[in-house]
Amino acid sequence: MNAEKIPDIIIGRLPVYLRALQRMADNGIKTTSSQELGEHVGISAAQIRKDISQFGEFGKQGTGYSIAYLLDKLREILKVDRIWDVALVGAGDMGHALANYQGFQNRGFRIVAIFDNNQDKVGEKIGDFIVHDTEKMVESIKAANIKIAMLTVPAFAAQSVADKLVQAGVRAILNYAPISLNVPNNVKVQHIDPATHLQRMTYYL
Amino acid sequence: MNAEKIPDIIIGRLPVYLRALQRMADNGIKTTSSQELGEHVGISAAQIRKDISQFGEFGKQGTGYSIAYLLDKLREILKVDRIWDVALVGAGDMGHALANYQGFQNRGFRIVAIFDNNQDKVGEKIGDFIVHDTEKMVESIKAANIKIAMLTVPAFAAQSVADKLVQAGVRAILNYAPISLNVPNNVKVQHIDPATHLQRMTYYL
Repeated sequence: MNAEKIPDIIIGRLPVYLRALQRMADNGIKTTSSQELGEHVGISAAQIRKDISQFGEFGKQGTGYSIAYLLDKLREILKVDRIWDVALVGAGDMGHALANYQGFQNRGFRIVAIFDNNQDKVGEKIGDFIVHDTEKMVESIKAANIKIAMLTVPAFAAQSVADKLVQAGVRAILNYAPISLNVPNNVKVQHIDPATHLQRMTYYL
Repeated sequence: MNAEKIPDIIIGRLPVYLRALQRMADNGIKTTSSQELGEHVGISAAQIRKDISQFGEFGKQGTGYSIAYLLDKLREILKVDRIWDVALVGAGDMGHALANYQGFQNRGFRIVAIFDNNQDKVGEKIGDFIVHDTEKMVESIKAANIKIAMLTVPAFAAQSVADKLVQAGVRAILNYAPISLNVPNNVKVQHIDPATHLQRMTYYL
């Protein structure tokens, strides 16, 4: 396995497989097939077999995949067999929603710090967190060696905050602001964009 | 073009192309190539050409794609050359964030109604909207012929609300709750799951 050569598009599908497999495991299911997994995620069985085979031989002809084994392997490949510390920037509605979100549990992430530049919000308590001033963000993130951030600031502020995050050593940004961020090549950005998801469904209406 | 036969996985990529092309257009760019588009969206040029050719002959050999023309065609294919009314269920932090989100503009959607079952929230004003009681949701959605809903209720309530939305005639649900929804085959669900997006980046860290 040569990690450098796996296309981004395949890496992009693995978390979708991971989520579907986790749901099967939660429902007490022990084994699955590329066919069955495909029906859950809307991807062809052939594509799934091809994607998974990039990382080695996981399935057995005729008996399918062991879900527990495949979960372990996918978590290892995606490096979510550990817990990553995440900084949240923006303590508005979306920031509150993410700070209280229950969906990160057992997925490899925990929020460890929240920042906002609004002095009315600095010091506010959200769940277990105190909102800190973005003035101290770069040094705090550096000191804590945080590599992942979620960005929920308004669009007009998003690029300048992203620049600071990069300066602080962040290498992965989940961007909720409805703009495109310019970052160096060694920084990954994923954009959460509800309109794109809605547009995936209108075709069928 | 036979709409019924386009695989879901291709339909799923079209909104990503649409967003990238819209950004190019916003930056004053008039034409692009599958190569250039591919670099923006992280999908191979060959795949992009194959996807787009499913719907007809859009590009010209050597001159690339006219962005304005391709935008028109993609909007038509995805049926976002019109404005869809959207119901929002759940007036918590995420509901507030979506009600105030600026990213739906010019993307084919507008929120027209907000519902919550919490009597403290019913009657509350969020932006231009009054929060209505979910008691009246089914009849309101039917009367307004709304086909799309965004679901931001807690996980434990999500399935029962989804059942009501289906009963009201909704055919597309954008689910923010961290659970999997069971819906009839003629109803589409997209799940917004920040952990999945984060897992797409950890591989590279």
